[in-house]
Amino acid sequence: MAFENDFIAFVRSQQQPGGCVILPAADDCAILKLPPDDLLIAGVDQVLEGVHFAPGTDPRLIGVKAMNRNLSDCAAMAAWPVGALCTLALRRGSSPELAKAIYLGIRQAGEAFDCPIVGGDTGVWDGPLAVTVTILGRSDGVVPVRRDGARPGDTLYLTGPVGGSILGRHLSFVPRIREARELAKTGLLSAMMDVSDGLAIDLHRLCQSSGVGAVLEAAKIPIHEDARVLAGRTGQDPLHHALGDGEDHELLFATRGQIEHPGVHRIGTIIDTPGIWIEQNGQRQPLAATGWEHAL
Amino acid sequence: MAFENDFIAFVRSQQQPGGCVILPAADDCAILKLPPDDLLIAGVDQVLEGVHFAPGTDPRLIGVKAMNRNLSDCAAMAAWPVGALCTLALRRGSSPELAKAIYLGIRQAGEAFDCPIVGGDTGVWDGPLAVTVTILGRSDGVVPVRRDGARPGDTLYLTGPVGGSILGRHLSFVPRIREARELAKTGLLSAMMDVSDGLAIDLHRLCQSSGVGAVLEAAKIPIHEDARVLAGRTGQDPLHHALGDGEDHELLFATRGQIEHPGVHRIGTIIDTPGIWIEQNGQRQPLAATGWEHAL
Repeated sequence: MAFENDFIAFVRSQQQPGGCVILPAADDCAILKLPPDDLLIAGVDQVLEGVHFAPGTDPRLIGVKAMNRNLSDCAAMAAWPVGALCTLALRRGSSPELAKAIYLGIRQAGEAFDCPIVGGDTGVWDGPLAVTVTILGRSDGVVPVRRDGARPGDTLYLTGPVGGSILGRHLSFVPRIREARELAKTGLLSAMMDVSDGLAIDLHRLCQSSGVGAVLEAAKIPIHEDARVLAGRTGQDPLHHALGDGEDHELLFATRGQIEHPGVHRIGTIIDTPGIWIEQNGQRQPLAATGWEHAL
Repeated sequence: MAFENDFIAFVRSQQQPGGCVILPAADDCAILKLPPDDLLIAGVDQVLEGVHFAPGTDPRLIGVKAMNRNLSDCAAMAAWPVGALCTLALRRGSSPELAKAIYLGIRQAGEAFDCPIVGGDTGVWDGPLAVTVTILGRSDGVVPVRRDGARPGDTLYLTGPVGGSILGRHLSFVPRIREARELAKTGLLSAMMDVSDGLAIDLHRLCQSSGVGAVLEAAKIPIHEDARVLAGRTGQDPLHHALGDGEDHELLFATRGQIEHPGVHRIGTIIDTPGIWIEQNGQRQPLAATGWEHAL
């Protein structure tokens, strides 16, 4: 069956030049032109069957998740997306409709931020389904926020409640691109990343990059209702899920001084001493860097 | 086992800013800055276990192939590479050394063209090994050559002999980036692509994109010695392998008028009539678009 040529024709029929895109997916590579002052931002993330989504998940949502994870990486730099490239590794025997549904999910998630698909590659193999998206973004007047700039005395914030994303939010979260750009325009952000693997492990990484430590205030951490529901099933504390579940894709950031911004939660402080800590009932204890980590 | 954090640390320890790279893989995304006049070129290709390489293949060569396929896409646009992003989907139980060897293969292939790895993502799953590379390039003073510009009367060329790459060349070919840029600087190229899936199917695609047809001269097609060796085993004509084997990654291009360039083979002519044809012993026959195509 001439699947590959048919699918490529389907993809190309849906694409048009525009914005920064001179030549979308129709050649060996796409051609883009960024405005001369722009920095180029580039990141890549894959979603793997059995790891990032369960077998049988709605393929449109798989596409949405693959794209949104990347848009969230773009948000973490306070960049604006300009285009995405996506690869599908399809299990032999899959239907062409599966591939199209994934593609349409990727496209739909991108359209929320005017981010077209500009290239890709499709393969068929005897393995499970893998979807990889590369995101290209531009600074567009906002200095990219790295994760290595936090300094002792900075205040730590989170853009929204965390925990329990496995109940469904991991497939449907909204990348915080607009929030990131608004926040970065204050000029007060010293470091930022998105919470993909878990608040504790991601805070640990931000602190490691910046050569600092951090203290979280347990009572200030916004705990998602999903974390409470999940805690009811697991017997864990809801805070445990908020700290370690990951795939929330809220933004974790540090600021010089304090800021006021709707929907933003102050959760702690950057300190000089390396390591991460949590304060609860007046006691400060070391916090394990819990969260998702790929193990062989 | 803290594989992911260890591997990320290994990758980061090998990277430095430089060239167009302001911030290499160390954050949610990399940051690059292209010179203001440059066009940005972007492409992506994956190599899948059991499809693009056999189980047990030297992991360094898997990395080399994944990178070189992408560098070849960059060559097909006559662009100069500036950075690559790579994802690994590793089978659970793989050794950390496997991941490092793949990474070093990718890096080694990139270094031949001053192309650093600027980002990536590593996952572990129960599937086979998949390696995806995204290539970013820049026009650097050469107008990118697309595949849709061939016109009737143009001459068709190939940068080297084809066929039989499965005997080993598919893992060790040299991307024709330098040749592509020299050729494009003549200003005579009207269309170009690299032969990844097979001379016949790729010529068919170039002609479809350009809205033209082509006639190949059988006697002029440079047949690789590997095609003859393989033909000795398969009982096929060596020309059959030259036309349909693919993974040669030589450049197929059309020019206004004719050119003289060392190592370049004139193989045919662009015609007005859609379709591809081959002339052999004074007879012109339709040519099937043989080559590799992913089927579900």
